[in-house]
Formats: sequence, structure tokens, C-alpha cells
Amino acid sequence: MAVQTVANTASGESADSAAPAPDETGTPSLGAAVALSCRECGTRTPLGPSFVCLECFGPLEVAYELPTGDPEALRARIEAGPASMWRYAPLLPVPADVAGKPNLNPGFTQLVKADRLAAELGVTGGLYVKDDSGNPTHSFKDRPVAIALEAARAFGFTTLSCSSTGNLAGAVGAAASRAGLRSCVFIPEGLEQSKVVMAAIYGGDLVAIDGTYDDVNRFCSELIGDPLGEGWGFTNVNLRPFYAEGSKSLAYEICEQLGWRLPDQIVIPVASGCQLVKIDKGLRELVELGLVEDKPVRIFAAQAEGCSPVSRAYKDGTDVRPVRRPDTIAKSLAIGNPADGPYVIDICRRSGGAVEDVNDAQIVDAMKLLARTEGVFAETAGGVTLGVTRKLLDEGVLDPSLSTVVLNTGDGLKTLDAVAPSAGPSAVIAPSLDAFRAAGLA
Amino acid sequence: MAVQTVANTASGESADSAAPAPDETGTPSLGAAVALSCRECGTRTPLGPSFVCLECFGPLEVAYELPTGDPEALRARIEAGPASMWRYAPLLPVPADVAGKPNLNPGFTQLVKADRLAAELGVTGGLYVKDDSGNPTHSFKDRPVAIALEAARAFGFTTLSCSSTGNLAGAVGAAASRAGLRSCVFIPEGLEQSKVVMAAIYGGDLVAIDGTYDDVNRFCSELIGDPLGEGWGFTNVNLRPFYAEGSKSLAYEICEQLGWRLPDQIVIPVASGCQLVKIDKGLRELVELGLVEDKPVRIFAAQAEGCSPVSRAYKDGTDVRPVRRPDTIAKSLAIGNPADGPYVIDICRRSGGAVEDVNDAQIVDAMKLLARTEGVFAETAGGVTLGVTRKLLDEGVLDPSLSTVVLNTGDGLKTLDAVAPSAGPSAVIAPSLDAFRAAGLA
Repeated sequence: MAVQTVANTASGESADSAAPAPDETGTPSLGAAVALSCRECGTRTPLGPSFVCLECFGPLEVAYELPTGDPEALRARIEAGPASMWRYAPLLPVPADVAGKPNLNPGFTQLVKADRLAAELGVTGGLYVKDDSGNPTHSFKDRPVAIALEAARAFGFTTLSCSSTGNLAGAVGAAASRAGLRSCVFIPEGLEQSKVVMAAIYGGDLVAIDGTYDDVNRFCSELIGDPLGEGWGFTNVNLRPFYAEGSKSLAYEICEQLGWRLPDQIVIPVASGCQLVKIDKGLRELVELGLVEDKPVRIFAAQAEGCSPVSRAYKDGTDVRPVRRPDTIAKSLAIGNPADGPYVIDICRRSGGAVEDVNDAQIVDAMKLLARTEGVFAETAGGVTLGVTRKLLDEGVLDPSLSTVVLNTGDGLKTLDAVAPSAGPSAVIAPSLDAFRAAGLA
Repeated sequence: MAVQTVANTASGESADSAAPAPDETGTPSLGAAVALSCRECGTRTPLGPSFVCLECFGPLEVAYELPTGDPEALRARIEAGPASMWRYAPLLPVPADVAGKPNLNPGFTQLVKADRLAAELGVTGGLYVKDDSGNPTHSFKDRPVAIALEAARAFGFTTLSCSSTGNLAGAVGAAASRAGLRSCVFIPEGLEQSKVVMAAIYGGDLVAIDGTYDDVNRFCSELIGDPLGEGWGFTNVNLRPFYAEGSKSLAYEICEQLGWRLPDQIVIPVASGCQLVKIDKGLRELVELGLVEDKPVRIFAAQAEGCSPVSRAYKDGTDVRPVRRPDTIAKSLAIGNPADGPYVIDICRRSGGAVEDVNDAQIVDAMKLLARTEGVFAETAGGVTLGVTRKLLDEGVLDPSLSTVVLNTGDGLKTLDAVAPSAGPSAVIAPSLDAFRAAGLA
């Protein structure tokens, strides 16, 4: 098998950001990534900290020359790789030696065969929970951040930054500390205490913004264009094309863990929508590379009712209209103006999937259901995904006879408040058998 | 290589517990485990839910007939195994098909090469953090519980239980849910909110006891002898010999991740002391099996000043005297009457190690140091271990020129209160460049 690491021969300044030059030759080594390409008009731009097409203002994404040749050899190479997302390094925009660099080595989290949950929900075709709470900072965000970190190193950035609803801030802070970069992360005020502490504990700067996530995001876009932000890599803004690719690894892992097979159905939470779009991309790449056999995969998107611009647009058949004031316990999904919303709707429609939302009570119920049946303590976003799964099963939209993968993207310890009022001791007793007998729990 | 799974031919009742018979033939299949053996007098007892030697009242431990033959073949078999502690199934008291049963599949957590931390501490021989916060419920407790679960299944228990300072309760609750057993766990009142929620979220019964951990432990011992506790497997009481073996996997993983080499020094937190004793056992087994070359390993024990019975006895040259009222932020280490305390002192003395303790402020400092340099957010127990490491380096007791492994056994999200007061936003600002400029963080 010939794995081609195609050198990027482009040189010169990046398209829309005054970042430092990649290196002496202007040639960052980012593996199979060869260029940035506009998702709308297809125009190519050299690899760099660019995120908007200068032709049509569409979003840029990474274009690859992926390994060609014998799929068996590629599969064997992947299986012999590290127990992290770097086993898929040949398919990601990262240097070949990425696993040897100081980084959090996220990924290769468990795909839980959820037989007890399946029994409760009446799913007979095989139900799986992809549990990304097993990542180093306990959310899927470690994946895109690990990719963005490599881009930041390649482009010579000295500060790693982001706008975040919480999980990303912790992931950026931790990754920067491991790599020895400075970090400065931005969050909306009023996040869960655990997410605030986790964003601050790594010793970088944490700035709370008096506003919504979308306000934070707009602020970060301004900062990039200002001299204040010089030398700053914003994982989800000027490094977004790279960052976004991190979620492809979820698709790779799910298929490898299913024995190199596509699932029939997959349910994915939607905040910006980026994760769903990239999982779809990853699944298609595996087919193109001959690593899995092609078959239809129905893709479903899950939102919280209190911030459901994509779900509403899907149901109403309208454009995605921003939600000004998100109001949901699923704060990690509280993005009122989701950049990839229209792509999500396209993918769900094209694949025979759907977009659905659940309310706060349904979210909590689903969190408890998952914990009780499978011992997985998901954050509210995981409750959204499982809640929507249950709703779509009840509505007959999800087919219970098909193999189904549900994503848990984060950790229950980060959204304690959602369940704390209803998760306490069954009894408080004196240390005696009589007291225990009286409690009636034996 | 001949991996011998020796059948246990013992039959009849267990030695000190009225548990159900193992199965129809009285022969539980627990891999290479062949009997229980007294750590004091060596008397053997058939495999069963027994924990005290009927001859001398000494503690029982699992005796094995470990795989004999070619170490290279065994090493290859391990390396081809799953990315969990079950890669070492041939060396543990579990059925050969354990990885296929519903369980949390813990272990094979990251061994972080902590170069930035090493630079700050002046360690030149290689510094590593074994980060067990990556386990499913984010503490090392998932390891012993996974072993105890197999024993519970083998002995026909229907309720999984424990006395716990918090982490164990969550691990037991989650494991029982995954396996479809009932759980009922006991904790002292006044634990961290996150640990209480995590102990309750899995839907089993959680009982808070008005007393210390040692009161809880005594209560559980009573419960086992009472009809109320019939059919109950207490992971750390009547299943303790099996449970305890789980920590051997830490030794195996550390050595495999070091390239099948022993470390020169290892620093381990001490609550009951069981973990340290079993890591020592695991290291010696690897030597005996020919999987690593023998060399001296200095073993160091870390306690919190507010509950340091082992450290005090070590320094004073006395017996281990119980601490009545532990007072430390490291609640997971707050065991005043550590069962394995004397063994810990023996091992540390024999190996050329030491026992040391740190105060609450040093614990918090160490937690922050680890987060800032390596992006690892440890719980207070991890702060104890790193704090003691720093103290022993300062005192010239630890040798900075030797390879050193420091254990982080739990997750910072579970002990938020310890750092929350000093881990908040650097600034709260309006979403404008002027406001950011005024904050002086650019």
C-alpha cells in the first residue's frame, strides 16, 4: 500500500488572517491534507489559518490526497496503531509523527454494546453508545482540539484560544498545557461550575463574556481581525477547517469497533452541527477507501427544545433562523446560530434520517436511563441524543430492527446540576443493622 | 506457550460467608486463580467469598497458577489483547472470556510522559504520570470492581455492594448497572456532591451513614454476617481478595507502557494501602514471568497529613495507630484504620522507598501544578501523590536521575471544591475589544 504524504507546495500568506508563516519553507507538514477547499464553490486555498473562501465567503474545509492502494494494508496499519485517534493519522490533517508529540492523545473511546438499554427501548438490531466521556477532558472536544493544536504548531501560533460553551474551553486549556502553549479561552457567563473550574484549572487565561455563546463567538471573530489577536490560534474560528476534521475520527472508530462495518442508523447531537457533518464525511471516506462496504446510513440529528434552530427549520421546511436566547439545561448545545445548520438538514434529508428535539425533563430522564441500564453517566448533551433516540423510536421514525449508534459526547460530572436534585442518598442512617432494617432497603 | 487455566476442584461452602454456591459443580471459572491463601500463615482455602483465614485470622489473597512457558509468546498475546485491563486476563482471577461479558472494560489508561512537569521538578531520569482518571467512572476503582464483579457472578451474588469514600460507590453502581445486578452502596455522610451524585445516578440504592468511613466499613462487616446481607457481594469486604487483585493491572500497564521495563521509582497514594501492596505484587509477577528484567524498584507511599496513620507509623517506627477523625480535603484517602498499613511500611522499607505526607495547601498546589504543566486535572488524591513526590524530591529522598512513575488515581471533577475558590475566570467582560483590552490579558 502506498500511503502518500503529499507535500503542500503552496507558499505565501494565509487567505484571511495575519498569522506567522508556517515554517522556513512555508510548508507545514499536515499529513494527507493538501489544501483548503470551499464547501460551496470548491475553490482551493493553500493550507493556512483560513476559514472563509475569498471567492464566495463559503466555509473552507480540508482537502486531502488520501492513501490509495490496498485497503487491507491500510486497515492493518490502523489496527497496529496507538489506542488513540492517531491510529487514523493517515486520514487526518496531522503530521505522521503526531503520536510522539506532547498532546492529550484523545480518542479510541469505548463503543458500548448497550444490550440492557436496547431491551428497554425495544431495539433488536443492535444498539451501541459511543461514549466520548472517556476522552482526557471527558468530552469529544479533545478530538478537534488535538487536530487544531497540530495546525497551531504548524502555523507558528503561540496562544491557543476558542469561544466555548464549556467543554471546548477545558479541552483547549488542557491541550495547551500539555503542549506548552499559552491559552486564553472565552466562555459565556453562567456556565456550570465544573466547566468553569475545568476551563481555569490548566492555568491559562479564562475570560467570561457577559452575553450568549453567539456573542462570545462574534467577539472572537473580531479579535482575530485585530492586532490584539496576533499569533492566536482560535481552534474553532481561524483553525476551524482543521479543528472540524477531528470529528471524522468518531466515524472511523465507530466503524472499526463495529468490525469495519457501517452502522444502519446514527444519532448525533447538534450544536454548531459541525460534528454531524464531519461524521458523515468520515463515513463516506471509509467507503471510498474500501475500508467498509457501502450501504445506506440514516443520520439523525438531536437538539434541545430550548435551543432547536435546526430542528425547527427541518420540521417547518424553512431556513435555519437563529435563536436569540437559548434556554436549556443542555448548555453545551446552546448555540443559537449554528454555522453548519443547513448542512445538517441536507445530510439528514439525503440519508433518510431526521432532526428532532427534546425538552429538559426528557433530557434528564434519558440521562438516568442511560446510567441505570448501562452505567454510563452522560452530560446533558448525551441526554439530548438518547432522549431524541427514544422519541424517534416511539414515533416510528428510527427503525428498531436496524443497528443503531447513539453518541454520548460528554460527561455527567460536568452537568451535575441537571440531575443533582433527583440523585441523592436513598436513606441517611446511623451505622447499625437496626437502622438499616428500618430503612427498608435490604 | 501453555496458558494453564487450572480448574478449582474444591467444593462446598465458602469459609466465612453464607453465599450461594458458585454453580452446579461448585467450580467457578476464575482463570489462573486456584485458591485463596493466607497472607500471614499461607493456609489455602478454596476459591469463594472468603476474606479471613480460619487458622490465624490473617487476610486472604488469591493464589494462582500463572501461565508458564515462553515469555515472548505471553507478551505477544497481551499486546494483541483489548485496550483494557482484560489484555492481562491470563494474570487475573477472571474467566478467559471476560472481555465479552457486560462490564465497564476499564484500564489501559494513559501513561503520560510528563516532560514539562519533570522540568519544573528537576527530574532528569524520566517522569511519568499514570492517569487513571481515564477509567469509565474516572478513578482506579473501576479496576478492582471489574474483578469483584466477575467473582460476584461466579459466586451467584445478586446485589453488588461496598463501603466507600465515594469513588468506589460510583464504580460499583456503574458496574452493577452494566452487568444487570442490583447495587446498594454505603458512604459516610458529607462527601463531595459529585461523588454523591455519581453514587446515586446509576439507579441502585445509596445509603449515607452518619459516621466516618471506618464506621461504614464496620457496619458492612456486620451486614455480611446478618441474614439481611444474604446474596450480597461486598466488593471490598467478602470479595476483597478478588477486588484487591484489580490493582495489579496498574503495575502491568505501567511496565508495558514503559516498553516492558520496570520503573526505578513509583509513588502511590495510600488509603487502605491495598493498591500499593498489589502493585508491588504485580511488579514481582512480571519479573517471575520473564516479562520484564529484574531490577530494584523503590516504592513510595503518599498520604494526606490530615489522615496519615501509615506515614506517622513509618516516621515514628511504631505500629499503625488508627486516626479517629480524618480531616483532609483528600477524602478518598480518609481511611483512618488502613487494613494494609503494616504491609505498606514493609514494602516501602524493603524496597528502599519511604512514606510521606502533605497538607491540604500542598495538595491543592500539586493539583494545579499537574494541570498547568501536563493538562491533567487530578482529584485531591492525585494532588497528594504529586505533592509527596515534590516533597521527597526536595528532601533528597527521591532520586531525580531515576525513572519515576506517579499515580493519579482519580478525577479533579470529583473534588471541585478543593480548587474552585482559586480557579475562576481571569476577567468578566462585555463582548467588545475595548473591554478585552482594558482587562490587560492580550
